[in-house]
Amino acid sequence: MKTTHFSEKDILQMESRNRAAFINSLHGFKTASLIGTIDTKGKTNLAIFNSVFHLGANPALVGFISRPDSAERHTLDNILETEFFTINHVNKDTYVRAHQTSARYPMDVSEFEATGLTEEYTDLIKAPYVKESHIKYGLSFAEKHELKINDTILIIGKIEEIMIPEDCLLSHGGIDIEKAETIAISGLDGYHSTKLLSRLSYAKTDTLPEELN
Amino acid sequence: MKTTHFSEKDILQMESRNRAAFINSLHGFKTASLIGTIDTKGKTNLAIFNSVFHLGANPALVGFISRPDSAERHTLDNILETEFFTINHVNKDTYVRAHQTSARYPMDVSEFEATGLTEEYTDLIKAPYVKESHIKYGLSFAEKHELKINDTILIIGKIEEIMIPEDCLLSHGGIDIEKAETIAISGLDGYHSTKLLSRLSYAKTDTLPEELN
Repeated sequence: MKTTHFSEKDILQMESRNRAAFINSLHGFKTASLIGTIDTKGKTNLAIFNSVFHLGANPALVGFISRPDSAERHTLDNILETEFFTINHVNKDTYVRAHQTSARYPMDVSEFEATGLTEEYTDLIKAPYVKESHIKYGLSFAEKHELKINDTILIIGKIEEIMIPEDCLLSHGGIDIEKAETIAISGLDGYHSTKLLSRLSYAKTDTLPEELN
Repeated sequence: MKTTHFSEKDILQMESRNRAAFINSLHGFKTASLIGTIDTKGKTNLAIFNSVFHLGANPALVGFISRPDSAERHTLDNILETEFFTINHVNKDTYVRAHQTSARYPMDVSEFEATGLTEEYTDLIKAPYVKESHIKYGLSFAEKHELKINDTILIIGKIEEIMIPEDCLLSHGGIDIEKAETIAISGLDGYHSTKLLSRLSYAKTDTLPEELN
């Protein structure tokens, strides 16, 4: 493969939407995560995020980045008001509707109604889940960090409950997210199905990893 | 699909390595990123991370989480010493060697030598790239945030240069990472190839997204 080199100057000179697509592509495959929230008046909100990341397993913590000057503001406001949110995986049947949640609907329009995804609730979490999602989990707000470097907000949530398809739990504790039909996203607009190459054993210095499947 | 529910108590009671696999699976597909660094004595280090996330496009910023009490300590120390690092995508030909970098090699062993991946350098970045990676970018250290909630460190890097295969740049600025053979990772041990379902047009409130491909 012949390589193209981009300098910092090349990146700065890109048209702004092209640059967003370019830089967002760099981080490779991610899971499209629908974040569900509700305000104190009962109006729900659903927004697609691709910056949800693992922060720790004990306690079980998740981070994501919110841009306060964008439509993501509604999600942020609701989490700070109610201190709850849900994260819902996107699958092959829901990705077009999930993508559509990124349109700039006004505050008084719920993306659930606008896109036809269905609200679902549990007793514990004061925020709507997406009924059509196969893997979903509920979180309480834990911490907020203002990242001055580009005026974004890091939200940290603590996982309170998890719902996964019964037949997708692997023997070593992992989840078979491919079997659960979770899809991968690339850049801002690419949606991909996956095919397992292999599962590798825990790495040790004195042997090479073995294929577990 | 029948759903299994896990409460916070269920999660706390899991065996610790199973819990790590379980919670790491929740965030869906991610890209396996090899982070290359070097210390001031010239000893290189290469480590696989799955918590690299997009922080912003202008300036082009990337974040990742480092656990100071783990083998990731070497990466963190090197970045703070030299203020440079590289991020290299993992592809079908390199994922077994990439996985192997997570073995707990002592500080005086370079994971490049141990796994057979090849160091590559540019004039700009004082850290090694992975020659076998098709998409790679170099960063300068920008900020460090200590996340007291679980004693992890958020490292923010500024992208200084980017190398991608010439034929993988899309017309709207995005990168065809599937064509570049980047793979997706699930949990701590699952490696997956991908297949594009579709690329969707920018979402607007008055129309449904169109397939761009």
